[in-house]
Amino acid sequence: MTNPILIVGGGPAGLAASHALASVGQASVLVEKEDRLGGAPILTGYAKLVPTGEWAKDAIGGMVKRVEDHPLVTVHTSASVESFEGESGAFSAKLSNGESVDASATILCTGFTHFDSVNKPEWGFGTFPDVVTTSQVEQMISSGNGVRCPSDDRKPKRVAILLCVGSRDRQIGREWCSKICCTVSAKLAMEIREELPDCHVYIYYMDIRTYGLLETKYYWRSQEEFKVKYIKARIAEVTSDGEKLLVKGEDTLVKRPITIPFDMVVHAIGMDPNVDNPDIASVFGIDLEPHGFIAESNTYGVIGETGRAGVFVAGSATGPETIDDSIAQGNAAAMSALARVQGLAVAVSA
Amino acid sequence: MTNPILIVGGGPAGLAASHALASVGQASVLVEKEDRLGGAPILTGYAKLVPTGEWAKDAIGGMVKRVEDHPLVTVHTSASVESFEGESGAFSAKLSNGESVDASATILCTGFTHFDSVNKPEWGFGTFPDVVTTSQVEQMISSGNGVRCPSDDRKPKRVAILLCVGSRDRQIGREWCSKICCTVSAKLAMEIREELPDCHVYIYYMDIRTYGLLETKYYWRSQEEFKVKYIKARIAEVTSDGEKLLVKGEDTLVKRPITIPFDMVVHAIGMDPNVDNPDIASVFGIDLEPHGFIAESNTYGVIGETGRAGVFVAGSATGPETIDDSIAQGNAAAMSALARVQGLAVAVSA
Repeated sequence: MTNPILIVGGGPAGLAASHALASVGQASVLVEKEDRLGGAPILTGYAKLVPTGEWAKDAIGGMVKRVEDHPLVTVHTSASVESFEGESGAFSAKLSNGESVDASATILCTGFTHFDSVNKPEWGFGTFPDVVTTSQVEQMISSGNGVRCPSDDRKPKRVAILLCVGSRDRQIGREWCSKICCTVSAKLAMEIREELPDCHVYIYYMDIRTYGLLETKYYWRSQEEFKVKYIKARIAEVTSDGEKLLVKGEDTLVKRPITIPFDMVVHAIGMDPNVDNPDIASVFGIDLEPHGFIAESNTYGVIGETGRAGVFVAGSATGPETIDDSIAQGNAAAMSALARVQGLAVAVSA
Repeated sequence: MTNPILIVGGGPAGLAASHALASVGQASVLVEKEDRLGGAPILTGYAKLVPTGEWAKDAIGGMVKRVEDHPLVTVHTSASVESFEGESGAFSAKLSNGESVDASATILCTGFTHFDSVNKPEWGFGTFPDVVTTSQVEQMISSGNGVRCPSDDRKPKRVAILLCVGSRDRQIGREWCSKICCTVSAKLAMEIREELPDCHVYIYYMDIRTYGLLETKYYWRSQEEFKVKYIKARIAEVTSDGEKLLVKGEDTLVKRPITIPFDMVVHAIGMDPNVDNPDIASVFGIDLEPHGFIAESNTYGVIGETGRAGVFVAGSATGPETIDDSIAQGNAAAMSALARVQGLAVAVSA
């Protein structure tokens, strides 16, 4: 009998990894720093997920329940890993709740941190109450209250969604693309149009990155079926005339300055490296890649392994990632960890 | 002892799945229709892979070798599955080489078909010998012969790479985005500039989709370090003045017609559904999604399962996919299949 595999982080990747291991008889210990499992989709309160259209509370909630109910998964919430010693096959972890875990391997599914829009002050967040984030719009929809202007709870007649807030922006040290915001914004635009058919929705973009099969389901459908309008533009600032929000910028297709009034402006916020990554790297003795995400060492050999043998990584801990890809990577890292643990077990008994 | 798991297709996803299963003691039978393993990266002759920069023949070649060498993997090349009967836990397959396989589950890793540029005749492929595809440029580089104009073997002084050939193009029935061509094109542009520093390389695009961390490594690096030029344009046609190829179109940023002469024009060809998919769907009793790729039925429950219990799918069989994601999905589908097979084994022995 090998020791359990320690999984750090209870979002989609961690839930997938722990369930996958349990389903083939391998015990795991799942450690989550927040007070409940589910990761960003549950903790942030996402509405319908890309690309399935299932509600997050059902889809990810179901993944939470089957992990919580499984006898081969031990869950520690409101806990983090404070020390991690030993080597592959025989690690020893100390948790912040005083527990100790002897682990044969570990999988870091420690996710990302949403970009904080106060770091982009010229675009009005924190100054004007009706400038909100995609996360807030997700919450408005998932709560059942609908999309309303925070200042006075009115139904907006005109909404602008600004892409790449905290992404592809060197001025604020975020050069990377956050991969899924274009698609999530197209999805939210359609949901707004569905709830409020009189509301006009504009998406301001640099490049539309609804890659792969997302192109049909989000980019084309949002334009043709839901009449969402796309404007290729560089945004200069978001201000107010006292009544409406004003989005000022340059339309890069017609090379002209444009100022359009809106009731609500939505920042499509990007994915930062988890703010805890420097600590995580230190505790687990692993490296970060240049942007601050967790570095993987090998793609074609042992998928998901870091530079330290027996320490694996999956999901948006490695960079901006979709939920589907996080789930695939969680399963893949579980397979890699299982192979390493079983290989060790065979070697010991041989 | 359960029956082996049948894996159809020996590209990155199939190689990952069969090795993953072998590494935890589960036998598999890998069936490949071509005469050798490796899939598109090997059969097409890719050069360096995105995003690692490793040579395909080393990276994917290594995956081939460890599968061929593993006692728990039985490989059939130049073979296809002609019939597939039974149910999860007890399938029976007949191969075109006369062999029969009793399989507990199956994973379809049947990949994609490169778009054939003759279906876009106005862009010059098949008419002018110096209009080539990204696959041909990969071969020029991987062969060690370097990038040369096919008509007279000269070193090109000006190269145009046209994105979205067979992608995002409703006129020819391909509405989807092929996900990785932008990045591959940026990579090839840098490789051309590296070999031929005097050669100017232009990339014609609609949207640049170097998503996630690819943004830094390919989009920014190609412009800043390698001086690759990007032109947002709608291409009308590729013709010739008898000496040079002429790319005619409209620059959509300045709204003006542009005609630029080139020595070589490269089609960044997209990913079509595998041309065999209707047959595969019929043999395995599964569904295709609207574009013709293989449909997955469940993201959050059992990853990679199709509508038929015990039949799984991974990689670019499901839609345009990267090699890394194909490998992750191959591992994930292997985990799902293993759980199903072990669950059945337990149920039978209980």
